[in-house]
Amino acid sequence: MPLQDIFDSLRLELRRGSLTLAVLAHLRREHYGYTLRKALLDHGLDIDEGTLYPLLRRLESQGLLLSEWREENNRNKRFYRLAPDGKRILKQLMDEWQRLNASLDRILPEA
Amino acid sequence: MPLQDIFDSLRLELRRGSLTLAVLAHLRREHYGYTLRKALLDHGLDIDEGTLYPLLRRLESQGLLLSEWREENNRNKRFYRLAPDGKRILKQLMDEWQRLNASLDRILPEA
Repeated sequence: MPLQDIFDSLRLELRRGSLTLAVLAHLRREHYGYTLRKALLDHGLDIDEGTLYPLLRRLESQGLLLSEWREENNRNKRFYRLAPDGKRILKQLMDEWQRLNASLDRILPEA
Repeated sequence: MPLQDIFDSLRLELRRGSLTLAVLAHLRREHYGYTLRKALLDHGLDIDEGTLYPLLRRLESQGLLLSEWREENNRNKRFYRLAPDGKRILKQLMDEWQRLNASLDRILPEA
């Protein structure tokens, strides 16, 4: 496998969990897909629609998100927000992420 | 799917990329499996053998690690260290991790 492909797959692996965490955290406030994607991008996370929308549907099917179709500016939009189970999971994942972070902060410079 | 299983799978997803990054970073110095696992644990990353050893073999087959069997204390041990391609990839992944981190540091408290 070419080195670039190996890097791309490791990069994806590194990003995947963080993206899920970022999406859950953002949906403490209600968003529809477009504004969510824009908010993530404004924070430096570029996630394409082909990744974001399946992720939203998966998280909803797992009971972590709630969604609702509503009309806004004469267009029907699907609004997402965190479900009660999603709040619990988000809290646990944030704790896990803090632990990973503390470990990597020590490992990366010193090892 | 029970909530605990959903959390476990998201936690695994969040950890997977970080573990690979931690392993590559540690192998800037040579280790064999046992001392590597212990060093990671000392930094707060608990990775079981059934995860670590396949990961080492995968990274070696991708050309990111070099390994060598040597005798130490009358036992044959397989020593791993970063290959030149591994050094390049590690540098790029560390940059990516810094970016993700900077984004999540802003998203998690505020969103």
